[in-house]
Amino acid sequence: MFLVVGERINTSRKRVQEAVSRRDAAYIQQDVLAQQEKGASYIDVNAGARIGHEKKDMEWLITVIQEVVTVPLCLDSPDPDVLKIACEMLKKPPMINSISLEKKRFQTMVPFLNGKECKIVALCMDDSGLPVNSRDTIDRAKKIVEGIEKTGISRDSIFVDPLIQPISTNTSNAVTVLDAIRGIKNEIPGVRTICGLSNISYGLPQRKIINRTFLALTMASGLDAAIMDPLDQDLMAILRTTEMLLGKDDFCGRYLKAVRSGEIKA
Amino acid sequence: MFLVVGERINTSRKRVQEAVSRRDAAYIQQDVLAQQEKGASYIDVNAGARIGHEKKDMEWLITVIQEVVTVPLCLDSPDPDVLKIACEMLKKPPMINSISLEKKRFQTMVPFLNGKECKIVALCMDDSGLPVNSRDTIDRAKKIVEGIEKTGISRDSIFVDPLIQPISTNTSNAVTVLDAIRGIKNEIPGVRTICGLSNISYGLPQRKIINRTFLALTMASGLDAAIMDPLDQDLMAILRTTEMLLGKDDFCGRYLKAVRSGEIKA
Repeated sequence: MFLVVGERINTSRKRVQEAVSRRDAAYIQQDVLAQQEKGASYIDVNAGARIGHEKKDMEWLITVIQEVVTVPLCLDSPDPDVLKIACEMLKKPPMINSISLEKKRFQTMVPFLNGKECKIVALCMDDSGLPVNSRDTIDRAKKIVEGIEKTGISRDSIFVDPLIQPISTNTSNAVTVLDAIRGIKNEIPGVRTICGLSNISYGLPQRKIINRTFLALTMASGLDAAIMDPLDQDLMAILRTTEMLLGKDDFCGRYLKAVRSGEIKA
Repeated sequence: MFLVVGERINTSRKRVQEAVSRRDAAYIQQDVLAQQEKGASYIDVNAGARIGHEKKDMEWLITVIQEVVTVPLCLDSPDPDVLKIACEMLKKPPMINSISLEKKRFQTMVPFLNGKECKIVALCMDDSGLPVNSRDTIDRAKKIVEGIEKTGISRDSIFVDPLIQPISTNTSNAVTVLDAIRGIKNEIPGVRTICGLSNISYGLPQRKIINRTFLALTMASGLDAAIMDPLDQDLMAILRTTEMLLGKDDFCGRYLKAVRSGEIKA
């Protein structure tokens, strides 16, 4: 089954930042319950935007969120100190978002990951920047997977993010990602893939139709998970429909359920 | 560029049949002009539903349609006698819809096609029925392409239709078609592919979202053309968006034009 990592609890979003600064638990709890209800398998928690408050904000968010949801959390921070405190509070093994091939980031994350029970998002980013083509992306994926496996994390717990660049800057950027996803799945058997989708449409109008069409295409290439908004009904509708078309919805059950609940309208 | 074969002029559609029986040229002409305006590269003409009237209806339709559109026609009939009369009236080389591997149909069509300037839709159907898996579909495609090429029609004028079976009867039916399209394009270099999409959603509710999601997936597998309704705005929107994502829309030009004209709304 395709994994949805619900992206809404991020203090870079204005309303979330306001709720966090006011310690408005009701707002956060209503949001994460809705995300879980609409199909999130993980709730991403990013408390990075209020400079100097990340640790406290993360602690508060975890407490408040775990009071109401049953799904695990995706801890979204580059700081091992924040992640360490956060992990100690968790009721379920988390997804960690993220590690990359940037030397400093890789070296500070590895000791933290050693022996930990978690899923991990692995970005195909290194100190030279973003990958330049799909071959480069696949090669970086191999390198980071090899590095992460040394910490004891199993391959099927690693979610490689090929990193999406906007199609407005180069019309082959989407095809590069589709080829990279297919290549990563073929050349690193058992590994998973994940994307944040919305970057693809940056700089273009009517972004939502681009994002949801791209979700269908990435799923057809083998994408396993997306960091996305499960409350975007049109996006979730195309997800359920694509899952069914790819033969991953027995008896079309989840599709039919979503139609009955009104979540899928043609 | 992806080819849209506009499917609306078919006497099995009630309003078209009424217009044809009343010889209501205005109705037909307004419809085909709209199809051309919205992006049809061919106008499919099927006059098969009024038993005993096919020849006369086809003649009348061709006359009426050619008075107003500049795009060529797709002659949709299994009867070489009807096709022959129709072809003599045409201003532009047509697409012929269709030939199959069924012995009788193949043998009556081949003399008609010999030396003709046209595109041809080639169905992967034989006397045993529909293909049973993607390997079977690809093998049938090879056989029919080989047969058609002997008439002098060039490979890039042949549009192979892998034939779609509903996902409601077998949840792997969509994947079978996606694999078949990719296989046909790889194993028969230069040949084109075409589908009528809507059969995929037969027996399920909210069919339109299934059809348009499937269009995106088939295009990602290499589909070159579809027999579809160009007046279905949501379907055309996903077509333009997918074309852009697949790197086939220079500077995102057709996408941006469709947004400006109001044809794409997120």
